[in-house]
This record gives sequence, C-alpha cells and structure tokens, in this order.
Amino acid sequence: MSDQPISRFPVPKLSELPDDIRELIETVQEKSGFVPNVFLALAHRPDEFRAFFAAHDALMDKSEGLSKAEREMIVVATSATNGCLYCVVAHGAILRIRAKNPLISDQLAGNPAKADLSERERHIIGFALKVAGDSGSIIDEDLDRMRTHGFTDDEVWDIGAIAAFFAMSNRLANLASIRPNDEFYAMARG
Amino acid sequence: MSDQPISRFPVPKLSELPDDIRELIETVQEKSGFVPNVFLALAHRPDEFRAFFAAHDALMDKSEGLSKAEREMIVVATSATNGCLYCVVAHGAILRIRAKNPLISDQLAGNPAKADLSERERHIIGFALKVAGDSGSIIDEDLDRMRTHGFTDDEVWDIGAIAAFFAMSNRLANLASIRPNDEFYAMARG
Amino acid sequence: MSDQPISRFPVPKLSELPDDIRELIETVQEKSGFVPNVFLALAHRPDEFRAFFAAHDALMDKSEGLSKAEREMIVVATSATNGCLYCVVAHGAILRIRAKNPLISDQLAGNPAKADLSERERHIIGFALKVAGDSGSIIDEDLDRMRTHGFTDDEVWDIGAIAAFFAMSNRLANLASIRPNDEFYAMARG
Amino acid sequence: MSDQPISRFPVPKLSELPDDIRELIETVQEKSGFVPNVFLALAHRPDEFRAFFAAHDALMDKSEGLSKAEREMIVVATSATNGCLYCVVAHGAILRIRAKNPLISDQLAGNPAKADLSERERHIIGFALKVAGDSGSIIDEDLDRMRTHGFTDDEVWDIGAIAAFFAMSNRLANLASIRPNDEFYAMARG
Amino acid sequence: MSDQPISRFPVPKLSELPDDIRELIETVQEKSGFVPNVFLALAHRPDEFRAFFAAHDALMDKSEGLSKAEREMIVVATSATNGCLYCVVAHGAILRIRAKNPLISDQLAGNPAKADLSERERHIIGFALKVAGDSGSIIDEDLDRMRTHGFTDDEVWDIGAIAAFFAMSNRLANLASIRPNDEFYAMARG
Amino acid sequence: MSDQPISRFPVPKLSELPDDIRELIETVQEKSGFVPNVFLALAHRPDEFRAFFAAHDALMDKSEGLSKAEREMIVVATSATNGCLYCVVAHGAILRIRAKNPLISDQLAGNPAKADLSERERHIIGFALKVAGDSGSIIDEDLDRMRTHGFTDDEVWDIGAIAAFFAMSNRLANLASIRPNDEFYAMARG
Repeated sequence: MSDQPISRFPVPKLSELPDDIRELIETVQEKSGFVPNVFLALAHRPDEFRAFFAAHDALMDKSEGLSKAEREMIVVATSATNGCLYCVVAHGAILRIRAKNPLISDQLAGNPAKADLSERERHIIGFALKVAGDSGSIIDEDLDRMRTHGFTDDEVWDIGAIAAFFAMSNRLANLASIRPNDEFYAMARG
Repeated sequence: MSDQPISRFPVPKLSELPDDIRELIETVQEKSGFVPNVFLALAHRPDEFRAFFAAHDALMDKSEGLSKAEREMIVVATSATNGCLYCVVAHGAILRIRAKNPLISDQLAGNPAKADLSERERHIIGFALKVAGDSGSIIDEDLDRMRTHGFTDDEVWDIGAIAAFFAMSNRLANLASIRPNDEFYAMARG
Repeated sequence: MSDQPISRFPVPKLSELPDDIRELIETVQEKSGFVPNVFLALAHRPDEFRAFFAAHDALMDKSEGLSKAEREMIVVATSATNGCLYCVVAHGAILRIRAKNPLISDQLAGNPAKADLSERERHIIGFALKVAGDSGSIIDEDLDRMRTHGFTDDEVWDIGAIAAFFAMSNRLANLASIRPNDEFYAMARG
Repeated sequence: MSDQPISRFPVPKLSELPDDIRELIETVQEKSGFVPNVFLALAHRPDEFRAFFAAHDALMDKSEGLSKAEREMIVVATSATNGCLYCVVAHGAILRIRAKNPLISDQLAGNPAKADLSERERHIIGFALKVAGDSGSIIDEDLDRMRTHGFTDDEVWDIGAIAAFFAMSNRLANLASIRPNDEFYAMARG
Repeated sequence: MSDQPISRFPVPKLSELPDDIRELIETVQEKSGFVPNVFLALAHRPDEFRAFFAAHDALMDKSEGLSKAEREMIVVATSATNGCLYCVVAHGAILRIRAKNPLISDQLAGNPAKADLSERERHIIGFALKVAGDSGSIIDEDLDRMRTHGFTDDEVWDIGAIAAFFAMSNRLANLASIRPNDEFYAMARG
Repeated sequence: MSDQPISRFPVPKLSELPDDIRELIETVQEKSGFVPNVFLALAHRPDEFRAFFAAHDALMDKSEGLSKAEREMIVVATSATNGCLYCVVAHGAILRIRAKNPLISDQLAGNPAKADLSERERHIIGFALKVAGDSGSIIDEDLDRMRTHGFTDDEVWDIGAIAAFFAMSNRLANLASIRPNDEFYAMARG
C-alpha cells in the first residue's frame, strides 16, 4: 500500500526544500527511522510549515503541568471525533510510546468513556472534547470545575490550546487526505 | 462596557512583554488606533503568540489567488458557525473594510445562503464551511468540483487552510472568552 | 444593493392593497422613514398579513412583565439559531434602540453565551432557546426553574409565545427570502 | 385519564371569556361534540387567541390549490418532527376524516418515507419538512424544483406557510403541554 | 391498500417454508386472526428467522421484573425514534392490549415526555432511549441511578436488551420496508 | 490491565453454565487460545446467548455473496460509529486476519472515507452505514442503486442484516461495558 499518494496537494522533494525545512525533516528521519508524511505534505508551503511546527512544538514538547502522555491523549481523543485518520494513527503510536500502554490509543479513539483513564485524565479528555466539539458553549463554570478538580489555569489553557491546535491540524490533514505512514499502525503494540 | 475582562486567562501588561511582541502590538495600535484584544489575550504565551501570528499572516496577508476580502469572508462565515463572537465581530469589521461593503459581514454571519455573493464567492464559502464543520467527509470529488469551477489547487488549499486556522483561532477565543473591542462593532458601517 | 428582489413571492404595490393594510404600512413608513420589507412581502396575502401583525402586536407591543428590550432580545437570539437574516438584522436594529445598547444585538446573534446579559436576561434567553430549538423536551421542571428564578407564569408564557411566534416568522422570512432593508444594518450603532 | 390538567397555564371557564371567543368555542363544540383543548388552553390570552385562529383559518379553511387533506398532511408530518403530541393526535384525527383514510396519519407521524403518498403528496411533505426543520437552508432551487413538479407559487407558499404556522402552534402546545382530548385518538379509525 | 407489497425482499409462500417455521406462523395466525407481516418478511432466511424469534421470545415473553406492558412500552418508544413504522404500529397495538390503555402507544410514539407514565415507567423509557440512541455514552452512573430508583440488575439488563433487540428489528424492518398489516392500526382503540 | 471487570453484569463461571454453552465456549477457546469476553458476558442469560450466537453465525459464518472479510468490514465500520469499543477491537482483529491487511481495521474505524477500499467495498460500507445510522430514511432508490452497482438482493440483505445485528450487539456491549480482551489489540498487525 506504500505506493498510494500521501497528499492531494503537491509534495516537494527534499532537495527542493529550503535548508531549514530540509534539515528539520532530516533530523526527524534520523530519530524516527522514517519521515512522517505530515512533514512532506505541509512542506509545499514553507511559511505555513514553519508556523505550524512552531505552534506544535510550543504545545507538545513540554511536560510541565500536563505530561507528554496527557498531551497526546488529547490529540488522539479529539482527532477521533474529527475523523482525522492521520492524527489518530500517527499520534496513537506516539501515545502508546509516551504512556507505555499498548491499549490506550485504540481505547481513546474508539470511545473515551471506555478507556482506562484516571480521574484526572477523564477530566482532561472531557474538557478537551468540549473545546474540540462545541467551544462556543464553554462557560466560566466549565473552567471553575476544572480548577475544583485541581487543575491550574496553565493546565486548562494547555488542554484547550492543544485541542484547538489539532482542530486546525485535523482539518489540514483531512483537506489534503494525508496518508498515515504504514509504520505507525503496528508501532509499540507491546 | 469597556471595563469587562477581555480574557479568562492572565493578560500581561505591554511593559512586561518580550520586545518583539511589544513592538508588534505597538505597530498594530498605531495602525488601528487601538489594540485588538486577541493580541493581549494571547501574549501570556509568547511562543504560541509568535507561531499564531506567523500562521495568520502567512494565510491572510496576501492577495494572490484569493483576494483579501475573500479571505475575510471565509473567516466570518466559519467563525459564525463556531459561535466565536470575537472573530465574527473583529473580522466582520475588517471584511466590511476590505470588501467595501457595509452589509456583507452581517449577511455571512447570519446566513451565508442569504448573502449577496457571486458564484465564485458562493463556492468559496461552501467549501470553507465543509472544512470547518465536517472535514472528515471531504472526498476527492469535493476538490474536483472546485477545480471545475475554476479554482487552482493553491486557491483550494488557501480556502481550506484559512478555515482550518480559524477552527483553531475560534476555539482559543472561545476558551479564553476573548472580548471583542467595542470599536469593531460600528466600524465601516458606511 | 437596493435593487435586489425583496421576496421570492409577488410583492403588491401599495396602491393595490386593501385600505386597512395600505394605511397600516403608511403609518409605519411615517414613523420609521422607510417600509420594512416584511410588510410588503406578506401583503400578497391580506388575511394572513392581518393575523400575523395582530399576533405580533399582541406579544411585542407591551411592556408589562417583560420589557420591550427583553422581548426583542428573544427575537434576535432565536432568529439567529434559525438562520433568519431578516429577523436578526431588522430586530437587531430595534433591540439596539430599545436596549440603548449598540453591542447587544451582535452579541446575541453571534453567541448568547458571550453576551452582556444580567442573570434575569440569561434565564429568559435560555428558556426561549429551548422553546425555539427543542420544545418537545420542555418538562414541568423547566417551568418550575423559571418560577424559582422569580418569573411569573405570564412572563414565562410571553417568553415562550414570542419564541413560538418567531419560529413562524423566521420560517416565512426564510421561505420568501425576505431581504432586510439596507437601513437596518447601521441603525443605532452609537 | 380525563382528569389530567389540559395545560400548564390557567384555563379560564367559558363563562369568563369575552363573548366572541365563547361563541366561537360553543360553535366548535356543537360541530365536534366536544371542545378541543387548544381552544381552552389559548383562551387566557384573548388577543393572541383571536390572532392565532384568524391565521389558522386563513391557511387551513380553504381548498384552492392544496386540498384540505393535503393541508392536514403537512400538519401531521411537521408536528411529528417537533414532538407535538397535541397536534399529531388532534390533526391526525382530522386528517383521517379529510383523507377518508384510517392509516395515513399514523404513517405520516411514524415515518413519512413509509406513508402511502402520491408523488404530489411526497413533494408537498418533503418541502414542508424542510421549512419545518431547516428553513435557513432553503434556496431558490428548492422552489424551482417544486414549480417543475407542477406546483404554483400559491401552493408553494401555502405549504411553507402551513409548516411555519404549525412551527408556532407546536411550540405553544409544547410550552403549555396541551393535552389532546381522549376523543381524538380513536376517531375515524374506520 | 392491502395489495401493497409487504417487503422489498422475496416473500415465500407458506407452503414453501420449512415445517417448523410454517407451523409457528400458522399458530400465530390462529391466535391473532391474521399473520403479522414481519413473520412473512423474515421467512426467506430460515436460520435468521429462527434466531430472531428465539431472541424476541426470550426477551418479550416473560413478565418477571418488567411487566409485559413495560416491555412493549420500550419497543414503541425506541422504535419511534428509529422511524420504524412497522414496529410502532404493530407493537403499538400490542401495547394497547397489554396495558389496557388505548392512548399510551400514540403518546409514547408522539413524545414520551407527554405520555401518561408512572415514575417507574419514566425511568424505564429514559434508560431505553439512551441505549437506543446513544449507547456509547452510557456510564456506570447511569446504571447506578437506575438501581437507586429501585431497579434490579436483571431489570436494567432487560430494558437495555429489549432496546438493543429492537435496534436490530427496526433496522431490518426499515431495510425491507415491512408494511404493517392494516389490522393493527385500529386494534384496541377502546 | 487484565484484572479489570469484563462486564457490568454477572459473569458466570464456566462450570456453572449449561453444557451446550460451556462446550461452545471451550471450542472457541481451543481455536483462539483465549475466550473472547463477549461469550462470558452474555452467558448469564442462556436463552439470549443461544439466540445471539445463532443469529451471529447465520450472518457471519458464510462466504457466498459477501466474503468473510467484507462481512467483518461492515462490523468494524458500523461499530465505530456506535462507539462500541469491544466490537471495534475484537472484530478489528478478525478483519485484519480475514482481509490479510494489517491497516484496514484502523482505517475503517478512524474514517471509512480514508480507507483503502475497492469501489465494491465502498458501496458496501456506504449502505451499511445508512442502515446503522439512519435506517428510517432508506428508500427504494437506495436499493436500486446497489443493484445498479452489481449487488444481488441477497447481498443487499446481508449488508443490511449484518449492520442491523451489530446495532444490537453494539448496544449490548455498551450496556454491559464489555471489555475487549487485551489479546485482540496487537493481533495480526503484520
């Protein structure tokens, strides 16, 4: 299946890319052993590419407040409600690794209410799904409830901002029909 | 009403901000006569702020393919379906200016099917609303139809990417309940 | 834009109308300076016209219990959920005047949860939106809750009856695609 | 079951009513053998009562264009989607009589797609359900299609206006929880 | 109307059926005076027929815990939300008989919130509708609430399992467009 | 995680079960190496258990018309829309085996529009999803279209009947919160 197109839009060759983007992609490739298709599919728009990954890294590459596994849980659960196959499969693999749990991604994608979550994780996912699915109805009481459950304002922001970022990311991946690399499906299945 | 809070999250003072962000805000203030609240509400997270406006400018500050008015039409129509008051009011003002049309923003926010749109604009808004509301169901035929109506792939990407960016932006504004500046409401009403 | 059709159905000339209807319209014109299009668009059916405005006036032209501004708030909020551009724009203008508030209409149309409302107003709008959107699920407890918040039965009826009347009105305006007069958009913007 | 309340709001005695309303109700009682509860439930608001039945009669008491049975079909089908038990049961009885068909009301209430309808009736119900359920999305093409199927503009208006009137009526009956008279259920079952 | 097809799929003659199925149908015919169409419409698949009625009887032909009337209430209410005309009409007749109540079926089909139900019945229908319409969101607390209202685990299972069985049954009847026998409509109307 | 409860309802011991059910379960265990939890979770109701698996086998254990892989595709796609984690995970594993394709299950569960499907498979899944999600709106034209695409009536029935059976199965699994065995998740990942 690896000869299927990875995007509905042009996919530049590595050699055609601006240096900073090519180097970033080569670094990812070295670390992962392959280039996740989202990097190639967004590269035809260098400025958008740079802003996208800058926003991504600002939200996902830290572990104060929310752990990295919690951040990936938000991605998998909200991406599933948006029907974003790329994000469910790719971040499902990352979540299995981060959470050291081979089951959690399929559970969150299939039905968060059935996932093996702690109370804290359940609140995170509940709030993230409201931001993803019906942000216009968020009221002060929603934030107050999170604070009552022990979340700091910085954590609440992170949950909402990650859900918001992947609202964008899911739509781009669905627009371009970015194909998940075959490698992601079986990764970290334990 | 101008003493209402502009965000549910901390709003830093200009003097506390990193130089580049403070200068960017001061430039906007000089041009507009006031600081749109979204700049202040996002400033508590400098890295996210920088990535957000870099992505925004990459999509909104150009007029090849889609005109600037067409870009703002996408923002107003999709933000209305997401119940994002900030974006409807602020970008409604910008759209009235860009389109030199005092009615178009209220029309698009109220019901795009009743707006005074050209056939081209109607296709833009239709596609953008699908990306905003149900991106998982976009199929190849949706893109083919746009091409048949004369849109280039770059234009289709721009429509989708703007809808995707404001899917994020709307959720952030709804998360923080960013208050539209009073100034926007009456602007360019003709 | 003023040369666009104002209805999908026949629009009679003033001179062709029954005396009582022509006189009513002329009175409105003197007071407002122009004839709101709904009067012209409904006039092709004189009996329906008379019943429509009799029902309208019985609900909207009084200020016992609910104030006139509160009545118009119901109209704007429920009409927005029905995608009725005519009612949102025309009653949006009336509400700005009645409430002496240039922002309230755009807020209610954009997202009632973000509008500057008192607790009382918030209950009014909440109940009206349930009548507008899902009246079949109204249970005794919904009315009891309103009574607990201090509303009389006459007020509860008025809220529900106004939402019900505009459920009809919105559908007629959408059926005929009644065009809001350009004058309404900029009225009372302060 | 006949000792259940017929409304959540005050129900005046016949003797307390204005003469014109009392006489209208007495006439209905003579013709039908009982007083349909909607007359009693709306009588606490005489002006609204008069306008309501004036509008009702203007739309339902004629048989040019749409037959009386077709008019009642619209009522039953749209009232079912609004969960209005009163209108489904009361107008279900009237429709069985008008159409001389003991099955048609339960069919339309249960699932219009399964009802024994002619092509003409199917178009009527399809258009009426769009007005009832999603009037904001009606476009010129919807009306053109009806014209192609042989409907006059007066017929299209009637279909839409009946659906609109019962959008109001259903909401009033649901607001007040008007109880259908027991007599309606078994009427004209053949 | 009795010459309408009763299924979109082949309907075998009684004489062509395996003995056990033919005998079962003849027994039903003797008891009811006619053959409900579902028996004929499913008979083209003998193994599925046997399993279907075995499952049906295991759930519906007992009265421990839930009464037979309560079981039929679940069928009517959930079938109505699925737009299954066959089940609403056929089981509506059975429910009128079982509950000795000529009104209850039309009430449950029209709007369960308006039906003359005891508190116990209201909880049964509420839980059944959640299983029918959104079973993925059932959480432990839903079952705990039923236990608090006095339901045994066996009763909760029965409610859910009946709703689940008719989720299948409704879909089969809608797939085949099984026509309710004319006899059911007027049965037990009192 | 294997010490989590596998059902919200009683789970009998193998030794307590009727002989036929115990033997059936032991046979499954020998073939699969473990007992899928659905067998244990349904065993507390022997008659329902027998009817359930009789219906299941009548639909799933044959390969005339639809192949076994096609049958499992229907299960995975429709179970995903019902949020049935058990069926998605367990039948996802079976589908990977039957289709000899390690990717197909996650694709169908994540977004059928993005799955690697042939035209024939796309029609199967489209029809199955309509039966699962909105069977009341199935019209003759839906079946005609399937026939035009080359499907026999027996195949159309099978697609619909499998979707209908799993509408029941998904609701039972969600009612009982049947836990997928850990073994299923990593099975046949290639």
